[in-house]
Amino acid sequence: MKQLLLLIDRIISRVNVNLEEFGFDVGPFINASTNLAKMLDYYASYAVTSKHPLKLQFSNSNIAASYFLGKCMVNRSVVYKSDVRGDELKRKGETIVFGSKELPLVEDEVITIRDSFLFRTLIHSKSHNLETPEEFFIRNTVAGHFSNIHGSTMEGCYLGVFATVDQMSLHSCIVGEFSYVQAEELFHRAIKPGTVWIANESFSFQYTYQEDVLKRYVALDESFRPVGLLIDFVESRKSDFERLFSQVNMDVLDTPQSSTVNRFALIKGKTRIGKNVLICQRAYLENAEMGVGSNAQENTYIINSTLSGYNVTAHGAKIINSTLGEKIFVAFNCFLNGKIGARIDIGAGCIIMPHTIIDAEEPITIPGDHLVWGFIGSQGDLMTNSISLDELEKMTEVTVGSMSFHGDGKVFVNAFRKRFEHILELNGAYFTKGKNRGHAQSDQSASFNMIQPYRTGPNRGIYPTITIEP
Amino acid sequence: MKQLLLLIDRIISRVNVNLEEFGFDVGPFINASTNLAKMLDYYASYAVTSKHPLKLQFSNSNIAASYFLGKCMVNRSVVYKSDVRGDELKRKGETIVFGSKELPLVEDEVITIRDSFLFRTLIHSKSHNLETPEEFFIRNTVAGHFSNIHGSTMEGCYLGVFATVDQMSLHSCIVGEFSYVQAEELFHRAIKPGTVWIANESFSFQYTYQEDVLKRYVALDESFRPVGLLIDFVESRKSDFERLFSQVNMDVLDTPQSSTVNRFALIKGKTRIGKNVLICQRAYLENAEMGVGSNAQENTYIINSTLSGYNVTAHGAKIINSTLGEKIFVAFNCFLNGKIGARIDIGAGCIIMPHTIIDAEEPITIPGDHLVWGFIGSQGDLMTNSISLDELEKMTEVTVGSMSFHGDGKVFVNAFRKRFEHILELNGAYFTKGKNRGHAQSDQSASFNMIQPYRTGPNRGIYPTITIEP
Repeated sequence: MKQLLLLIDRIISRVNVNLEEFGFDVGPFINASTNLAKMLDYYASYAVTSKHPLKLQFSNSNIAASYFLGKCMVNRSVVYKSDVRGDELKRKGETIVFGSKELPLVEDEVITIRDSFLFRTLIHSKSHNLETPEEFFIRNTVAGHFSNIHGSTMEGCYLGVFATVDQMSLHSCIVGEFSYVQAEELFHRAIKPGTVWIANESFSFQYTYQEDVLKRYVALDESFRPVGLLIDFVESRKSDFERLFSQVNMDVLDTPQSSTVNRFALIKGKTRIGKNVLICQRAYLENAEMGVGSNAQENTYIINSTLSGYNVTAHGAKIINSTLGEKIFVAFNCFLNGKIGARIDIGAGCIIMPHTIIDAEEPITIPGDHLVWGFIGSQGDLMTNSISLDELEKMTEVTVGSMSFHGDGKVFVNAFRKRFEHILELNGAYFTKGKNRGHAQSDQSASFNMIQPYRTGPNRGIYPTITIEP
Repeated sequence: MKQLLLLIDRIISRVNVNLEEFGFDVGPFINASTNLAKMLDYYASYAVTSKHPLKLQFSNSNIAASYFLGKCMVNRSVVYKSDVRGDELKRKGETIVFGSKELPLVEDEVITIRDSFLFRTLIHSKSHNLETPEEFFIRNTVAGHFSNIHGSTMEGCYLGVFATVDQMSLHSCIVGEFSYVQAEELFHRAIKPGTVWIANESFSFQYTYQEDVLKRYVALDESFRPVGLLIDFVESRKSDFERLFSQVNMDVLDTPQSSTVNRFALIKGKTRIGKNVLICQRAYLENAEMGVGSNAQENTYIINSTLSGYNVTAHGAKIINSTLGEKIFVAFNCFLNGKIGARIDIGAGCIIMPHTIIDAEEPITIPGDHLVWGFIGSQGDLMTNSISLDELEKMTEVTVGSMSFHGDGKVFVNAFRKRFEHILELNGAYFTKGKNRGHAQSDQSASFNMIQPYRTGPNRGIYPTITIEP
């Protein structure tokens, strides 16, 4: 096990060098959060299909986890329970247009992860860093539990628990717990916990959680352990997943031909899967009604809820005791926590902003085509935490409750709508008569391979060097 | 699947070119025996430990199977359900002495399998080919069901069902069904089915089964399908193994610390495992009493039987309704088929020659320290199928029944005893107080990795190219 301990120490010191200016030490967090027994015990699995360019290489690492669909190289890192779905990596022969410049790609894009410790971390592959278009890199970075690196290159960063960094580049930054940031490129910045910040040349959107509210949901305690209702929620359902990892072949759910339920998704109770539905790795469905073209992405939970159709449930979103109309975008890490006597009812066409918490004390009804953000406990909270999309489109300056928006409202709304439709298309929500094929139709043919680390000697817990090519 | 079909065709034509002189066509056999559905469905698993030099590479192949412990490279081949246990490969730095010549090894020895189709085939790694000491190769070869390539390099050969080629080199040869050959080196020879032949400069031993007897146990029917009692025996127990391959972690048997039961061995009924016992991959134990230091090698079956201690059950041997004293060597592919009312009782120190069939119509008792061979149905058959080892040691020429022996009896008996003791030592049968460690003590720490072929497209059934290094 000596090599594994050395590896972890080496990562801590490298990240700390990058965050020196903040006087920040990732050591206590890593040491409090590392579960060595599980790192030694868990195995890794990766998916292989005939449709994804294949190149996987793992060396000097612990990769106790998951699925790496697409080209990915991991070196001197701990990638613990990660998905790293690389199915949107750019490919050789494509040309990227950047302003008036054209960048023809001479090789397939590869995700490279080096000297990093990523706890239960998703990495989605649509990189927006055009400076190194063939390499999507994550280096010298520590990412906390359920943090979400989505198409973002990273250098020398620390992401807190449940933090999301979306489609941008980040250099020597700290992103606080439950913060969401999508701001093109940031250098040497510390983002306060509970910040939701979207900024580009056309607009900026900002909301920050009140400290006492945030603390109830996500925080680190005095011994640097993640605590709060969101952690409790996820931890209490963790053991359910274990049976998925103890069998090679799972029972097949009654699923339409045009839909995919990932072999590592957990399906319980009376769950119904409609056509063109995509249920990803580590999604948790219990008494879920998944309407046509809906999806449940990695690390989502859909419990006692109905999704009418063409709904996007983005990474880490949780939908409980809720009824959703059609075409609703529930963005990253939302926590829609309806109760049996206090359901959440959301009208068609709504955009629930990333990291929104709706913890219903009473029944809550959200009218259609609204933008929703921040913390909502009651129907009355909607006053300060939502706005009609029609209204927003006409505005350039809005302050509602703790949210402030500057810029072109129409461009902002369109950007979200475009992304929403793009996700539906990619996922195959509109598949019909052999056309508009997407993940829901193609992921079915993945084969899963499973690998384990050395079980004895100084390399205990380290995986052998493995290279997989076509 | 196109590539898999092309691969099989290519192997057929290459092997046929090598066997041209015999007018032999492996095509009908391959085509009758290939179960494409299973090749597509089964996964492969390989073991990794901290103690074996690691280098595995699979390319352009279907390797639906097993465990490859040790360095092994497979290219353009079908290795279907094989074990390929490479744990006795020679290592860098060792020096091989050949007469007065010394060969220092500059690299670890590697098993290379190319352009070959090996059905459910074991390959054990103690190569005796000194011409290429760093490469143990199998090329342009087809090996039938349950055939056994044991430390033998092969070029352009066809091995029939249940044939064994032991510690030798074979070039452009045919080895008939259920034949055993250990003859140092052979070129362009066809060995008749049911031959047991051991020859070197000091002695030769030969026995050939009567055609009508052999036909009852192993043969090919007119459509080239393997048939007979041995095939039936194995086939009828095949489905029992399936659950081993559908779970990642198996229930742990109550096994002494100093013993190993492989995770892919099948244990049923009241089976007891003594100290220093080694139960290998794909061994089948049912109501088996395994005394101290006993082993059950790959593809063995031990049913309703007692092994008193320090017993070797070599690859493919079957022991049913039998009681064995101590230190009995049941060699490759023996079929000791006792019945409930007709048990087989074997005295201590016996050597049951490879490919011996004892199919008891009545209780059979074999006195200790005897050599036993050929077909035995009754107590009376022992007259023509056994000899006291003491007696044999004094002789240079013996003909008993259909067996003929020439050469130095003492050298012959000692060679078997030496090999027997060597197997016990390697397997850790004599482990005590931390000393004399062997496979029974070290195999416990293997981690198992599982891989699957492409599931769609032209490469369906072909595995991605995988390289595994330390």
